[in-house]
Amino acid sequence: MQWKPDRHSHLSLHIQIVDWMKTHIERGEWTVGTKLPPQRKLAELLGVNRSTIIDVLDELKADGLLEMKRGAGTFVSNNSWNVLLNKSQPDWHKHIQASIHKPNYHTIQLINEYEQDSCIIRLGTGELSPDLLPTKLLEQSLQSISLNARDIGYSEPKGSKRLRIILSDYLQKRGIHTSPESILIVSGALQALQLISVGLLEQQSIIFQEHPSYLNSVHPFQSAGMQMVSVKRNERLAETLKAGSGKKQSLFYTIPTLHNPTGSSLTPEERKRLLEICAELQIPIIEDDVYHELLFEESPPAMKSLDQTGQVLYVGSVSKTLSPGLRIGWVVAPEPVINRLADIKMQTDYGSSAFSQEIVAHWLSSGLYEEHVASLRQQLKGRSLFVESILNENFRRIATWEKSMGGFYIWLRFNEPVVNKALFLKLIKQKVLINPGYIYDPSDLHHIRLSYAYATLEELKEGLYILLNNI
Amino acid sequence: MQWKPDRHSHLSLHIQIVDWMKTHIERGEWTVGTKLPPQRKLAELLGVNRSTIIDVLDELKADGLLEMKRGAGTFVSNNSWNVLLNKSQPDWHKHIQASIHKPNYHTIQLINEYEQDSCIIRLGTGELSPDLLPTKLLEQSLQSISLNARDIGYSEPKGSKRLRIILSDYLQKRGIHTSPESILIVSGALQALQLISVGLLEQQSIIFQEHPSYLNSVHPFQSAGMQMVSVKRNERLAETLKAGSGKKQSLFYTIPTLHNPTGSSLTPEERKRLLEICAELQIPIIEDDVYHELLFEESPPAMKSLDQTGQVLYVGSVSKTLSPGLRIGWVVAPEPVINRLADIKMQTDYGSSAFSQEIVAHWLSSGLYEEHVASLRQQLKGRSLFVESILNENFRRIATWEKSMGGFYIWLRFNEPVVNKALFLKLIKQKVLINPGYIYDPSDLHHIRLSYAYATLEELKEGLYILLNNI
Repeated sequence: MQWKPDRHSHLSLHIQIVDWMKTHIERGEWTVGTKLPPQRKLAELLGVNRSTIIDVLDELKADGLLEMKRGAGTFVSNNSWNVLLNKSQPDWHKHIQASIHKPNYHTIQLINEYEQDSCIIRLGTGELSPDLLPTKLLEQSLQSISLNARDIGYSEPKGSKRLRIILSDYLQKRGIHTSPESILIVSGALQALQLISVGLLEQQSIIFQEHPSYLNSVHPFQSAGMQMVSVKRNERLAETLKAGSGKKQSLFYTIPTLHNPTGSSLTPEERKRLLEICAELQIPIIEDDVYHELLFEESPPAMKSLDQTGQVLYVGSVSKTLSPGLRIGWVVAPEPVINRLADIKMQTDYGSSAFSQEIVAHWLSSGLYEEHVASLRQQLKGRSLFVESILNENFRRIATWEKSMGGFYIWLRFNEPVVNKALFLKLIKQKVLINPGYIYDPSDLHHIRLSYAYATLEELKEGLYILLNNI
Repeated sequence: MQWKPDRHSHLSLHIQIVDWMKTHIERGEWTVGTKLPPQRKLAELLGVNRSTIIDVLDELKADGLLEMKRGAGTFVSNNSWNVLLNKSQPDWHKHIQASIHKPNYHTIQLINEYEQDSCIIRLGTGELSPDLLPTKLLEQSLQSISLNARDIGYSEPKGSKRLRIILSDYLQKRGIHTSPESILIVSGALQALQLISVGLLEQQSIIFQEHPSYLNSVHPFQSAGMQMVSVKRNERLAETLKAGSGKKQSLFYTIPTLHNPTGSSLTPEERKRLLEICAELQIPIIEDDVYHELLFEESPPAMKSLDQTGQVLYVGSVSKTLSPGLRIGWVVAPEPVINRLADIKMQTDYGSSAFSQEIVAHWLSSGLYEEHVASLRQQLKGRSLFVESILNENFRRIATWEKSMGGFYIWLRFNEPVVNKALFLKLIKQKVLINPGYIYDPSDLHHIRLSYAYATLEELKEGLYILLNNI
């Protein structure tokens, strides 16, 4: 909501707000059933007294356009055309409720919503701080982009050939030898999971995931009707997978390097073992490798680099290192798999932004990217030490954590099960946003995914202080 | 395939090609079951004699890596690690066959594939010719883009606020009065259909579509399990919709302005009638309005501009006017609907390219866009006249068509049912690619969607001549 009444207008604030609301209702933008923000919030958003809002709502209720439901709020109950012309309109709420895709969890919707509030301290955001993004360099680099008319038309199904050639070269450093034909450009790693979900799996397939898992906070597999099975790190892997998969198709999703949300990495031995067990059981693996360049020390080998049978679907992205706004990631997999995923990608969105692809190609091939990532690692390292010093000073009696090895996150464990939705909401009221552990494992009330990547140092300090005061 | 053997190497061509193929098989890029291109094609691609290819294939067959299936081609039958280590690999082909999403029709896959061949004449492509894209202006405009660190992070769920404000202004010219909160930025119109499909409809919903329909050439609804019902233009609309929808949820998809593939437009009266009938039956309408700016004369009002109950989901895009490579489109709908679609968009790909959104915002707000579209209309008009003159000269005895009113297409109807897959394949061999009518209506063997927008004038002339010689 960006509109505000004009205090210099000859019309009263009351009349302006009534007109504004009526217009929204009449245009059909606020359909029947739409819930209005609470009175206090409306007053704040429009910059007027609450009494003005109450008067406006009363008038619209009298007009039959709004209704108040006790304890639930104020809703649009009708629109004037309906009243005047007795026209019906589609029951959008029924449509939404009956439809296929799951809504995001309420906590995650709130996180998405409150992240737009520039006054809130974001203690959990899995994203680089605006300070850490190479905004000026990106802007300057736009001048080095030369466009070719063929490249800005509809894309080849697999994405820009130039970018795929550059990537096949770049991936060699990660020990991954692949041809450009075995690479698909996607709009970020999440889209890769979506495409795999509908392109390679039948409904009711089993998705093995680590416990806790990033996948519980997004729904690429759940919305397509897959069954999620969590596997704890030290569990008897072979037995669990054998028992879990049964006769169904299955797939193992892993973030072996700088795992989200825990920040931990699998050892080289654990990687080999996982690969062997999955090979034996013919369970393909998705290796989500979007954080590896942010390891403070040397990185263990990618599982894909050990893959000799084409069982690993490797997923990478620049969202955690360069800019999420580019929306560029990639999948490396056997060519028939890539062909299939490319076919579905074409049916989904006809390819990723050609402009974003050109920018990434330029950054990777010019060396700008590597230079930037090296300096980014240093800055993240500094931020992690800063947060750890605050934790050491203030949280030692009530929580435990591991020293960060890289990336964005510290998986902070409180001794008591205090991290519930009430805490989440209480902190929002105090302008602090956390990512509670329960969005990664519904039964977890002990953890917070702390991110030292997003907020400023001052905000991190203040936010942790407010957090401490609410435990 | 871009690799070619090195003629200056000390290794023979034979050895180089054997090594190259083995590498692909051993890395798992060509999995068991992968089909190799035909010998002649391989020879062409690698720039060697066919006899060299035959020798190479023989060697790999002897090694047990390839097998020949009579009449079907050469396939990867094994990979060396499997042979050596007796390792198994996932059966990708089984995975693909059992999975949820439909593959594209074979004809459309071939179209996607052959469109990559720069020697082919594309008579049906629904895309602006590279000559018609403002490539240089786009490149220059990159220098006017100023980036804000907040804008190149993860996007707001509905997309760039700046772009939505600019769009709400821009849409006023189309008679559509909407606030930025009722607009969702998407990665092209096709993604809008995907989101609507999984976000607003239950499985087995009825999708009414025009006959013929663009929707038959893509699968956003079919893949989500919807039932398609085609409605002919002059049919008794109310009765058909009433009978067709029954007790199920339903939705009407229409391109009222410059319909794809026929190029025709609904009259203002037809628009009103469709709106009224759908309102009465509570059937929401998707108005796909991506071509309207390409009308040579003035445009009839958007159906959305007549919508008083929020029943129209309006879809727009810059793919047909500015550059498909931007992958930017928008949906205008009641706010609760937009909130729902935005939630699913976040779960699907975390938003569209921030860079593309900045570029579109710049073009729309600076006036560059309108200027470009005005000149584009003139150029398309010239192209349509050129093609019509060829048709008048050569096709009058065997086909009929309407004079183009704008956009890209002429819906060429042959008197005889000659437009079958055999013709499609025969023309490919002669380096001419057509969009046959049967991809828009499976029972149609009379039509070709002729596009005067893509090929050069010389190519159009030559392509039509080859077409004529094959009828």
